[in-house]
This record gives sequence, C-alpha cells and structure tokens, in this order.
Amino acid sequence: VHVGDRADGAGASATGAEAIRLLTGLVRNVADHPQPGIVFKDITPLLGHPDAYATAIAALAAPFQGRVDQVAAIEARGFILGAPVAYALGTGLVPMRKVGKLPAATASAPYALEYGEAVLEMHVDALRPEERVLVVDDVIATGGTARAAIRLVEGVGARVVGITALLEIAGLGGRAGLDGYDVRVVLPPTPD
Amino acid sequence: VHVGDRADGAGASATGAEAIRLLTGLVRNVADHPQPGIVFKDITPLLGHPDAYATAIAALAAPFQGRVDQVAAIEARGFILGAPVAYALGTGLVPMRKVGKLPAATASAPYALEYGEAVLEMHVDALRPEERVLVVDDVIATGGTARAAIRLVEGVGARVVGITALLEIAGLGGRAGLDGYDVRVVLPPTPD
Repeated sequence: VHVGDRADGAGASATGAEAIRLLTGLVRNVADHPQPGIVFKDITPLLGHPDAYATAIAALAAPFQGRVDQVAAIEARGFILGAPVAYALGTGLVPMRKVGKLPAATASAPYALEYGEAVLEMHVDALRPEERVLVVDDVIATGGTARAAIRLVEGVGARVVGITALLEIAGLGGRAGLDGYDVRVVLPPTPD
Repeated sequence: VHVGDRADGAGASATGAEAIRLLTGLVRNVADHPQPGIVFKDITPLLGHPDAYATAIAALAAPFQGRVDQVAAIEARGFILGAPVAYALGTGLVPMRKVGKLPAATASAPYALEYGEAVLEMHVDALRPEERVLVVDDVIATGGTARAAIRLVEGVGARVVGITALLEIAGLGGRAGLDGYDVRVVLPPTPD
C-alpha cells in the first residue's frame, strides 16, 4: 500500500463514524493494570491491525499538516504514535523520556500521574526558539504528562502548536489544565 | 511534504553515499552513558532532523516493502524507528516491552545486554501463526535483544522475515548470533 494514499484520505475517514467504530472496538479494557482498581486502556489490538493503525496515525496527523516543525513524543506508548505522526507530517521527532534515559544535557519537568509521580526529560538542544511543536501521547488522563511536556517545550522558547492523543479519560479532567491549547483527541472520551 | 514521495525514493537515496553521510553525521557519541566506560550512540540529533529522520525510516522500510505483515519494535528507542517503519510498510505494530509493561497475557524472553540483563515481553495474542514479522531496533550490539525478539516471534509460530536496525556495533559480534536471518543495518558498522 502506498503511504501517501492513506495520509491523503485520512482527514475524512478518521473522523467518520465507521473509522471511529473500528478504532474504538480495538481498544480493550484490562482490569487491575498496572495497579488494583485501575482499568487500563490497552491499545495493542489497534496497533496490530494494519488499517486501524494507519487510520489512527493519519487522524492524529491530519489537523496539523503543514503547521509543525517538530513532534514531541512522550515515552513509551507516545513513541508508538508520535513517531509515525512525525514521519507523516515530515517533521523531526523529539523524544520526551523518563529520568536518566537521555544521554546529553536535559531539562526536567516533574509531574503527577494517575497513579504515582514521575519526571519527564528533554534534551535542551532538541528544540530551537520559535519552533512549532506538536505534543503526542497515547492517552490524556489527568493531563499531567502533557503539562510537563508543555513546560519543557516552552522552557526552551519553542511553541506548542497542539496536543494530540488517541484517547481521553474525561473523568480525570485533564483538559481543564490544558486551557488555551489546541487539544485534539481521535476517539470519543471515555468516562474512566 | 508528501509522505509517499519519501517512501518511493527511499531505496535509492538511503543507500547513497550522501544520505549515509547525512545520517552518520547526526549520530553523536556520548561518553560514559549509561555507565562509565560506555560510549553511547545518541541518535536524537538524527531524529530531530526532518530529512534525516524521513530518510532513515524509508531506508529501514525499503528492503521489506510488501514482504511483512507485522513490525515488532523493541522498547523504547526501537519504538521510535519501528513504529514509522510499520506505518510506511502498511503493517501492524507489535510492541516488545520490558517486563510488566504489557497489560494482557505475555510470553517472556530473558536476554543479556551489553551492560546488564533484561527480559523482553510480547502479548501472546499479538501475532498469528505464519505471520511475516520484521524486527526493528535502533542498534545491533551483542544481538541479545534481537535474539530474544526472534524467540518471542517464533514461539507463537510466526516467521521472522528480517531484522533491521539503524546502527551496528561490529566489535560486539551481534551478527554472528543472527546467522540464517536477513539482517539489514542502514549505517556502516562502527567498531565500538
């Protein structure tokens, strides 16, 4: 299959009801992962379905075509979505990683997770001032990871053009903390 | 930039001397990471360079166009290369992850790293028997990670069509342990 075919038709098909049904049906709930009481949204069935995966990537990329210089992808599931979004948009890819993973000089942003705490790091030379950056992750939950990513991008003088994810857990109120940013989520929000 | 343009021209340009020089010049050596005495090959300058990133992905994908059903990508830097390779080839993406990260039932393969030990996991329902799988990682060093990935793929009855990486550290002899497999590395091997 020619990659361009998919990227071209993506905007339309990805917002279509049929595409949304395909993608939604391939997200499975796994109880008690990574902790008891947490219902984990497992996107691996979607990743493993060639048409669904291509549709998801194209849908994430479409609103930002021609508007982005770099895609910042959040470790580790954000890499699986953000890296092909960067390829589809023709941009570079900036990995935002857990503490101690990046080898050169980093900036750090601590944040609270739905379950626990973490620190996100970015190479300080990864972005130039005024570069237009799209932040990609798999899920927007509390929004804490996205806010940490925004702090890292803006901390070096670059600009956040948008924040996009495949899923949103509306009950955790992540979007409220992202006020003023262009937040796009491919699938309809789930309550928890 | 239209994605298809890139994928189409990839086979030729990626093997060209100019493309190799571009990519090689964007891999930087970082001393003493993650441990004293290790010289780490940092590919983040390459990832952040839009043309280099697109060239690298297209070069990784080109030899396997039309020959692969699923791309198995190894956490975490392997995700950054393997996911866009899956998108470029029109396949699904199977994440091979560190222990405890995958939420559903997994198969496990322990392996020795250049520095330390680890376990690679794959969802047991991620591949069907006879599916054709391309394994993607950033670097082939001792080959231990690639061999663990092969065991996981073959353990569920799927077939390894090839193993590809951006870099190879020839001095660690990884290729010897991958005898009989189609191993492709984009950049010329470095001694250490």
